[in-house]
Amino acid sequence: MKKIITISREYGSGGRDIAKMTAEKLGYTFYDQAIINTVSEATGLNPDYIKKFGENTRRSHIFNYGYNGYMGIGFTGFSLPDYLWQKQRELILYIAGIGNCVIVGRCADYILRERDDCLNVFIHADMESRKKRAIEVYGDPNKNIEKVLKDKDKTRKTNYRYYTDQIWGDASNYHLTLDSSEFGIEKCADFITYLAKQ
Amino acid sequence: MKKIITISREYGSGGRDIAKMTAEKLGYTFYDQAIINTVSEATGLNPDYIKKFGENTRRSHIFNYGYNGYMGIGFTGFSLPDYLWQKQRELILYIAGIGNCVIVGRCADYILRERDDCLNVFIHADMESRKKRAIEVYGDPNKNIEKVLKDKDKTRKTNYRYYTDQIWGDASNYHLTLDSSEFGIEKCADFITYLAKQ
Repeated sequence: MKKIITISREYGSGGRDIAKMTAEKLGYTFYDQAIINTVSEATGLNPDYIKKFGENTRRSHIFNYGYNGYMGIGFTGFSLPDYLWQKQRELILYIAGIGNCVIVGRCADYILRERDDCLNVFIHADMESRKKRAIEVYGDPNKNIEKVLKDKDKTRKTNYRYYTDQIWGDASNYHLTLDSSEFGIEKCADFITYLAKQ
Repeated sequence: MKKIITISREYGSGGRDIAKMTAEKLGYTFYDQAIINTVSEATGLNPDYIKKFGENTRRSHIFNYGYNGYMGIGFTGFSLPDYLWQKQRELILYIAGIGNCVIVGRCADYILRERDDCLNVFIHADMESRKKRAIEVYGDPNKNIEKVLKDKDKTRKTNYRYYTDQIWGDASNYHLTLDSSEFGIEKCADFITYLAKQ
């Protein structure tokens, strides 16, 4: 039985919904918004800022980094992105210590790589399903949605590479990867639940 | 119900055994040696040559390619590696037409990408399990086994990249990827069988 499930996902793949459903099926705590709120309290950073940049720090802060990389937060020597990463990392390690949880994104698979009670999952989907989902479910209003999705992939990939030195979406980082456009959201949650119980 | 299962795998991950077991469980035909024999008959190439280079053409033939790329096989304009690829591709398309089959390696996931009755799987494992398996099960006598495994990965990756323009082992190419060192050979076969029946 796995105590911790980490779910990484492409934007528009329904990975967050699969994570939430898996948590319900296993009776585990679902961490996504809770991470944002806790990190906000610990750092004083705005929750919207954390939501926006918590997984995209590297690409979105090229300008910030040049400045903060030198001065640091409160002269700690940390750049703002690295400070946010550090706080998120501490929280993920703490959450994992409690166990029985599902954690979405934030390089949790890498942060918890030494644990053997952790099931690492990656969810992806084909471009058509992702576009449909981004528009219908998330209400993304952008007309050039394919470009938005590709930009999001690139940003997450860059962030993941920077902090983990691994390749985002490479099968070898995960115990299991699933194409949600092939199996559907509910079935993916069922599979993960089944495998977590092994 | 999926009619065709393609299984790509890291050397030493037990992917071939998983494919064979899956074929037995589904009552499907297992294609690996059969592809080698048929291509050998059609081309006149030695089965050992096809076994050795059928998935490694690009890296192993840099010298051959320079020559054959110019002269071609029987003056067809094909280099020897491209000729072998072409013949394997034709056979895989033919086999898929019959259906109810499990095909191992040979970029079958890419060759059959237009079909919607095809389940594409990638099997990998951690380095320790792969080393153990390569020595114990495949009887690989090489002392520097980790280097051998990494070389095999590189060769398959290069070959896959050349013929498909995709990245070998990237989750997005497959409906499902599994870490056989996490779940074990039999469980992986069970899981693929279950998903093929959906």
